Amino acid sequence: MIVQTQFVTFDRDLHLQNGAMLRPVTLAYETYGELNNDRSNAILVMHAQTGDAHLAGYNSPSEEKPGWWDEAVGPGKAFDTNKYFVICANVVGGCKGSTGPSDINPATGKQYGLSFPVITISDMVDAQCWLIDYLGIKQLLTVTGGSMGGMQALQWAVSYPDRVKSAIVLASTARLSAQTIALNEVARQAIYADPNWKNGDYYDSTPPNAGLAVARMIGHITYLSDSSMHEKFGRRLQERERYGYDFNTDFAVESYLRYRGNAFTRRFDANSFLYITKAMDYFDLSYGLQSLADAFEHTHAKFLVVSYTSDWLYPSWQSKELVRSLIQNGIDVTYVEIDSNYGHDAFLLEVDRLAELARDFLGRLLP
Amino acid sequence: MIVQTQFVTFDRDLHLQNGAMLRPVTLAYETYGELNNDRSNAILVMHAQTGDAHLAGYNSPSEEKPGWWDEAVGPGKAFDTNKYFVICANVVGGCKGSTGPSDINPATGKQYGLSFPVITISDMVDAQCWLIDYLGIKQLLTVTGGSMGGMQALQWAVSYPDRVKSAIVLASTARLSAQTIALNEVARQAIYADPNWKNGDYYDSTPPNAGLAVARMIGHITYLSDSSMHEKFGRRLQERERYGYDFNTDFAVESYLRYRGNAFTRRFDANSFLYITKAMDYFDLSYGLQSLADAFEHTHAKFLVVSYTSDWLYPSWQSKELVRSLIQNGIDVTYVEIDSNYGHDAFLLEVDRLAELARDFLGRLLP
Repeated sequence: MIVQTQFVTFDRDLHLQNGAMLRPVTLAYETYGELNNDRSNAILVMHAQTGDAHLAGYNSPSEEKPGWWDEAVGPGKAFDTNKYFVICANVVGGCKGSTGPSDINPATGKQYGLSFPVITISDMVDAQCWLIDYLGIKQLLTVTGGSMGGMQALQWAVSYPDRVKSAIVLASTARLSAQTIALNEVARQAIYADPNWKNGDYYDSTPPNAGLAVARMIGHITYLSDSSMHEKFGRRLQERERYGYDFNTDFAVESYLRYRGNAFTRRFDANSFLYITKAMDYFDLSYGLQSLADAFEHTHAKFLVVSYTSDWLYPSWQSKELVRSLIQNGIDVTYVEIDSNYGHDAFLLEVDRLAELARDFLGRLLP
Repeated sequence: MIVQTQFVTFDRDLHLQNGAMLRPVTLAYETYGELNNDRSNAILVMHAQTGDAHLAGYNSPSEEKPGWWDEAVGPGKAFDTNKYFVICANVVGGCKGSTGPSDINPATGKQYGLSFPVITISDMVDAQCWLIDYLGIKQLLTVTGGSMGGMQALQWAVSYPDRVKSAIVLASTARLSAQTIALNEVARQAIYADPNWKNGDYYDSTPPNAGLAVARMIGHITYLSDSSMHEKFGRRLQERERYGYDFNTDFAVESYLRYRGNAFTRRFDANSFLYITKAMDYFDLSYGLQSLADAFEHTHAKFLVVSYTSDWLYPSWQSKELVRSLIQNGIDVTYVEIDSNYGHDAFLLEVDRLAELARDFLGRLLP
């Protein structure tokens, strides 16, 4: 399946939650499958913290790896592109084609850097809504995503109750916990501490790769579980038979982290990392309300909420809190806790279990 | 209780596990209570990663805070100094008075930096054994500690089976897990990434405080639990009523981490942090053996092993693994899993429960 990334630029003001405006707004997106005649089969998939619009298939025949959720999106898969029209867009604030801090600020003619406005999950969703309008879709069959993608799905159901028939929320939360804010903050501190970061003004010089690599390594630990790391790495040594008694890499798990940390700096912008983690920290559907349940007062989408037993970044208690709030509003919600060893990464890896659930859930919505 | 830190310097070779030697070796230590006539009431307490010899009481009347485990050590406390002679020494490799990388290398006349040899938990224990000899003690009533202190207690029982009547091991492990190695490695990477680190050669210039602060922040997240962070901080804002939509501190948990990270740089040496985390990573009592049980072949100390339900840094499964290995050797072991919300910090905070257990356990050893 060869698919092209497409771009649309909106030359109008995006009114942001912090009171500022963003203009112009470009969105990079991909689509899969065909929109049906009554435009009722559209599914919007939203990516997690460091993802992009390249959801599935290949952008070219020479591409080595397919899109980030190719296992779940395609003909006959969980999100069956023979049946559904699937859309995925890079978030505003990102660095994968949609407007973000590494783009040119029209007011100065230079890259935004920290002059880019602080954005929120709600702002990301508002921009996506422009794309949905642009594609001529009145109501999405479902909005879905894992982790930060799940936060956007929830925000859609709250911000645009009439535009969303259902939401599938995976390994996510209705509001970030103190522990997850703490982990995001330490990752940001690693970037701030890199003198190459220069308050975000590094686009004409060496980027803060050392800091960004450390930030990413923290992330990778949180995506796995104690148990999956034990199974995958244990205390296995990396290319040595005995301890080296030095500060080189002794253990396979160290090698893995160093590799992943460095690889990440080749594909991601440090400022985008800052803006996106901050958007997550601010995510709290109960912000300014009496209770979380109040957030869903006008919501009438059907929900499928899935959490994973070994996910300690967005543990099941957070999904259960969400489900209780939905039930308090009389919303039709199915909650499944999948027994998995993969930690937070389970939402990407436990595709067979998800496929069963999604097929049943979507099949009832669009027979 | 006013107590002075004492120092003893051994001008002899400490043969290290990596084949190198360290000389001279200075140990900073404190003692509390009186050694009895038959020298049978000595307890050696070993500190965790960033601790020191200042276990309890005050070094001077003007000191603001008492030693790090004052709640557990003193007259009538868990380790009752009316009854026991309690000793605590700073580990070799540390920066609190015992020989470490910030001390002068006699071969060069300059601070060791990375010319300091890589040390292990076993090396730390060998140096402590010199101190115990020096104090004229043949057998310790008990060796105890939490976290890295517990590792040293285990190592004592393995390295010096005849010198140890019992061991109390809290929130610890017989070998570091992949997840904990990973967390240590990311913390080290944060230090390496700081250009002020200069390969450890920073004693005449600005130290790598930014990197060390990030390393410490990671640590603080792992010492707490998701649930204790939720209770302690939640999403509470710090000195603002609404989101700031900027990269300053919004949340109380961010403020806590920044404060703790910065405070740590005023009291700890970055190179010591590297050496000590590396010593922990290398800690594996089964290294080179067929099984963990083989490690305890010659051990005959009685054990009290305690783990804490919300400790995800040294989770209970690791204590249970240790206990099984002890039982396989017919060793007398009592295992208690304490229900606590405090995460890894529980070993420092759940003092009442510990006091009960320690009193019963020690009371049977020295009626």
